[in-house]
Amino acid sequence: MKFSFKNDYSEGCHPNILNALLSYNGDQQAGYGEDQYSLEAKKLIQQKIQSDSDIYFVSGGTQANLIVISSILKPYQCVISASTGHILNNETGAIEATGHKILSIEKEDGKLKPEDIIPVLESHRNIPHQVMPKLVYLSNSTELGTVYTLAELERLSSFCKENNLYIFIDGARLGHGLTAETTDLTLQKVAELTDVFYLGGTKNGALIGEAIVINNKELQQDFAFNIKQKGALLAKGRLLGIQFLELMKDDLYFELAAHANRQAMKIKNAMKERGVGFLSDTYTNQIFPILSNSLIEKLSEKFEFYIWKKMEDDFSAIRLITSWNTADQPVEEFIKMINNEL
Amino acid sequence: MKFSFKNDYSEGCHPNILNALLSYNGDQQAGYGEDQYSLEAKKLIQQKIQSDSDIYFVSGGTQANLIVISSILKPYQCVISASTGHILNNETGAIEATGHKILSIEKEDGKLKPEDIIPVLESHRNIPHQVMPKLVYLSNSTELGTVYTLAELERLSSFCKENNLYIFIDGARLGHGLTAETTDLTLQKVAELTDVFYLGGTKNGALIGEAIVINNKELQQDFAFNIKQKGALLAKGRLLGIQFLELMKDDLYFELAAHANRQAMKIKNAMKERGVGFLSDTYTNQIFPILSNSLIEKLSEKFEFYIWKKMEDDFSAIRLITSWNTADQPVEEFIKMINNEL
Amino acid sequence: MKFSFKNDYSEGCHPNILNALLSYNGDQQAGYGEDQYSLEAKKLIQQKIQSDSDIYFVSGGTQANLIVISSILKPYQCVISASTGHILNNETGAIEATGHKILSIEKEDGKLKPEDIIPVLESHRNIPHQVMPKLVYLSNSTELGTVYTLAELERLSSFCKENNLYIFIDGARLGHGLTAETTDLTLQKVAELTDVFYLGGTKNGALIGEAIVINNKELQQDFAFNIKQKGALLAKGRLLGIQFLELMKDDLYFELAAHANRQAMKIKNAMKERGVGFLSDTYTNQIFPILSNSLIEKLSEKFEFYIWKKMEDDFSAIRLITSWNTADQPVEEFIKMINNEL
Amino acid sequence: MKFSFKNDYSEGCHPNILNALLSYNGDQQAGYGEDQYSLEAKKLIQQKIQSDSDIYFVSGGTQANLIVISSILKPYQCVISASTGHILNNETGAIEATGHKILSIEKEDGKLKPEDIIPVLESHRNIPHQVMPKLVYLSNSTELGTVYTLAELERLSSFCKENNLYIFIDGARLGHGLTAETTDLTLQKVAELTDVFYLGGTKNGALIGEAIVINNKELQQDFAFNIKQKGALLAKGRLLGIQFLELMKDDLYFELAAHANRQAMKIKNAMKERGVGFLSDTYTNQIFPILSNSLIEKLSEKFEFYIWKKMEDDFSAIRLITSWNTADQPVEEFIKMINNEL
Repeated sequence: MKFSFKNDYSEGCHPNILNALLSYNGDQQAGYGEDQYSLEAKKLIQQKIQSDSDIYFVSGGTQANLIVISSILKPYQCVISASTGHILNNETGAIEATGHKILSIEKEDGKLKPEDIIPVLESHRNIPHQVMPKLVYLSNSTELGTVYTLAELERLSSFCKENNLYIFIDGARLGHGLTAETTDLTLQKVAELTDVFYLGGTKNGALIGEAIVINNKELQQDFAFNIKQKGALLAKGRLLGIQFLELMKDDLYFELAAHANRQAMKIKNAMKERGVGFLSDTYTNQIFPILSNSLIEKLSEKFEFYIWKKMEDDFSAIRLITSWNTADQPVEEFIKMINNEL
Repeated sequence: MKFSFKNDYSEGCHPNILNALLSYNGDQQAGYGEDQYSLEAKKLIQQKIQSDSDIYFVSGGTQANLIVISSILKPYQCVISASTGHILNNETGAIEATGHKILSIEKEDGKLKPEDIIPVLESHRNIPHQVMPKLVYLSNSTELGTVYTLAELERLSSFCKENNLYIFIDGARLGHGLTAETTDLTLQKVAELTDVFYLGGTKNGALIGEAIVINNKELQQDFAFNIKQKGALLAKGRLLGIQFLELMKDDLYFELAAHANRQAMKIKNAMKERGVGFLSDTYTNQIFPILSNSLIEKLSEKFEFYIWKKMEDDFSAIRLITSWNTADQPVEEFIKMINNEL
Repeated sequence: MKFSFKNDYSEGCHPNILNALLSYNGDQQAGYGEDQYSLEAKKLIQQKIQSDSDIYFVSGGTQANLIVISSILKPYQCVISASTGHILNNETGAIEATGHKILSIEKEDGKLKPEDIIPVLESHRNIPHQVMPKLVYLSNSTELGTVYTLAELERLSSFCKENNLYIFIDGARLGHGLTAETTDLTLQKVAELTDVFYLGGTKNGALIGEAIVINNKELQQDFAFNIKQKGALLAKGRLLGIQFLELMKDDLYFELAAHANRQAMKIKNAMKERGVGFLSDTYTNQIFPILSNSLIEKLSEKFEFYIWKKMEDDFSAIRLITSWNTADQPVEEFIKMINNEL
Repeated sequence: MKFSFKNDYSEGCHPNILNALLSYNGDQQAGYGEDQYSLEAKKLIQQKIQSDSDIYFVSGGTQANLIVISSILKPYQCVISASTGHILNNETGAIEATGHKILSIEKEDGKLKPEDIIPVLESHRNIPHQVMPKLVYLSNSTELGTVYTLAELERLSSFCKENNLYIFIDGARLGHGLTAETTDLTLQKVAELTDVFYLGGTKNGALIGEAIVINNKELQQDFAFNIKQKGALLAKGRLLGIQFLELMKDDLYFELAAHANRQAMKIKNAMKERGVGFLSDTYTNQIFPILSNSLIEKLSEKFEFYIWKKMEDDFSAIRLITSWNTADQPVEEFIKMINNEL
């Protein structure tokens, strides 16, 4: 069996979660998120962000994105996203299926700046013949593994307020984004600087689950209706509550993400020492080294990963992803193989 | 702590499922339902229905309903449902949110017959000023605990074929429906006689999960796109696969449902012996006894349940639901209390 | 050629409109409703309702209904309508196609009262499992030719305010509704007592065109986007502007509707004198007399009309509609035939 | 009053249309497109395309686009368009509002080739995580005034068939596209080579109206429901039928478009003689000359037009549009002014 660096959702979940599911299994609880575990987990998150934001647990990232976006926008309003955005490329038109256009801004590093957004606003002034840009969608860490710093998010947040735009962070890998060694952004600051964001569980040690956090009071009203209408309100909400309770306790969530980041950095640094170049300079659990096709073939005999992009001269960029559960052994084996071959 | 007869999703899941989640937890598996557990579970279901129908696992009932219905219908086509249908009353307009009207047929027992549907077809002939009825939605067991017999479903199925209508069974409680002592309908016959149905896991011992079974070949094409677009494709599809694998093995699914039915029947029979009347004569895990309000108040001190409907003369109907996990003790205590008071 | 009493849109338009189209034909004007005729027509309507409400012209009634309703409601909110409502029966699911459920209240006379709405509100309290009723849809005159009085609309309007509901009048036949001899309701009062209403042109002498009037300030913002997005913003908005300019001048609009009502009342009164009964007691341009099938057959030789409902004893109700253009001659011939036969 | 070259919908309609409206005004006709004028107009179009395609008249271009596209596509399917496409830039997200994504291909001249489409197909193979491209949207003439030749459309049509894609032509300016001196494409060939197209009336001498022509048999079924559901079925369908009857008679439609093209070419040729450059080399009624800002200012004193794009060195491109009704005088005056100034 080859070891897979294909993604961060190949394995089950952190053992603490399974243990908790076992411990609480026989208890009778209210349904639809009114169970005590969900209520406690929400309190824990509220404490960490120092805010009484509304919190809802849903199953997955596409679901979180489509519910948040469709609940915020009026029919004629649209989203702005970097061209690398998950909602643009990997969600089968889920946002458009709720009736909303996404305006794409070409970005190699997956990150938006105010300077990127200004021309989009300026080219959408032909009222009422064009959609109205209203929501800026960010992901952190991005689909390319890059992250926002505090200063970057502060600038974006101010810009959005000034321009009457909402700001929403897709946090499918928020743990990884906030524990990257190059960022000073914190969970509390994310809550302060966004209207809505979510904390991804699926890619960080849970079986399923994302925690949607609604900071903007005006967006809080009646949100639960949207969850139910889109088929996202689990009868056994306890499944989500128990998982986030365990992840939030003692900051397990950030510990798991930091572990994944560290494992990726080990590989990255080993490669850098051997002169390998990268598609982008990332500090989270996704790295995109550029290797010769012959080396890639050799690595493929022992490891699974995606070939991301064909480059010139018989080289390609591959994508390696580490997870909360990536042990030292496969990392070391991979590095050893690199060192032997380069 | 009062014992709850409020619903069949108060507890966690069957221990076999937790054990399997533990056993397989460390394995790396492909995402999005391509894991080996999901593939095996699908094969097991196909064997049971003796058909190579397409099978997809999703998280919950509303999600299953909205994905199936919106994938089948063209924009101008609509659903026909009994007035008690879950899609009409308890899904926050999830079906309409996908663009489709539901035509409601007033039915006290929650079951549709061809005779009920004919007038709806006849009153929708003013083309193109009215929606086109195209899909008949049934639930089995129904929201009132009633069930279809083989003969009843055969008649409906023939009628639908003759009238160019699709037939879809919401099987949130299909286990209970098929193990009721009064029915001769089988899972294999359900597959033969419907275009699509689903096997509900959430209300029958799983943490989450419904298995959508698409029998009609013309409805199978590209169905996975719909799952993804509606946010229902779990990255860790293994969570659903493992559960259905355990539920399908050795017919645990039917055993659990039959247990729930038996516990409800014990209470029902005890009450009948004491002369209690019922809102409807059900043989599944939902019963609706009519009791004096004073007795209801006494029962409420020890048990939780919903008051379903105010009746005359200080009587009310209550709803009692038993589950795969309802032990003998609370059932016996409840019966004892009834016997003492009546 | 038989004379048709089938509807009020069989003929072209009032000659004043054609003359105006001819006179202004060569003028160059701004597109998309910014032409001077549209601007003047809007001012005229504002003067008549003594309010600076926002006004938009669209092509037809279904279009007006779907734009207004979809622009007002959030995804999880729904409409309340009498069971006879045009949006329920004759618009091919246009409202549901925008994502919104319509709750139907069974009403024989097509009119809603607060007493009818209260139980609907009470049965929709299971948050968030049910849609949220938010908009009351009325039509005046109704699809059955009945009308609201000032007192009735005042009660409804107060009730809606108290219950945080919007109120919208489908005025496809508002001219007829307001010129019925039995009502004291005025256009100005309609504007005061509703959030939105529209003045129907198509069924009252225009070629096409309905004037949507938005009285509630909070519903005015950005409304033009909705018009454009739904494909209802005509490049040559002048076509709508010119028509409403002519209809509003010297109250031609009300004169035409009053004429249609008068012609219908002539037939109604002649029939009443001969002892004919009616499905509903209407005072507008729609009447529903109950006649023997043999008489209906004879009338059919000279006139076209719809058979509305089979009654017992070989009788049926028919629907007769008169228009702004129904001359005296066919009315007199019809009456003569009735008098000869009864 | 300045003469406007801003667009081709500034004036009313061709006098023949008004005369016909007058002549037929008193006739009683069936509603909803069943009037004799609509039926005759459809026959005329069928004769011209030598095909029994289904034909429907609607009010405007955005309406035609959204109805056609939403009726063709399944929820997970999407449209491919050149980046200049009207549906992408000037319809307020009308297509997305029906649930469908538009994939944009950057094209300076507004025309698509198979080579442009291939990479889009290739980058959308990650099933089911991406939308499925299914419909190619063209406009002819394009939004930039360019046109397709027969050979170009034949190549595209073959490519689409081979790749299981539908092909739809937005013909808001089809008359202009087919009468350009540089094309050999004919109306009959358009019908042969597309699944659906429409003949635009609004921008070619009608008050309103576009004729949707459905050539592909499998797309014809039940199309009328879509028209009605989107609010596009006029009660007085005669208004559309009479207009297309007049436009189709004696090829008035093509005569009017050819006139508009000729007037634009006069201006274009006069400018070319003086050395003026153009944004694109067009042969229809839209031209985009590049002029000095000072000359543009002078022209603005006598004429209205849009400034399309700022260029370098104090030059800008302007857009001039001529219409079916543009007389010789303003054209000559404009040319005279150019000749005086350059």
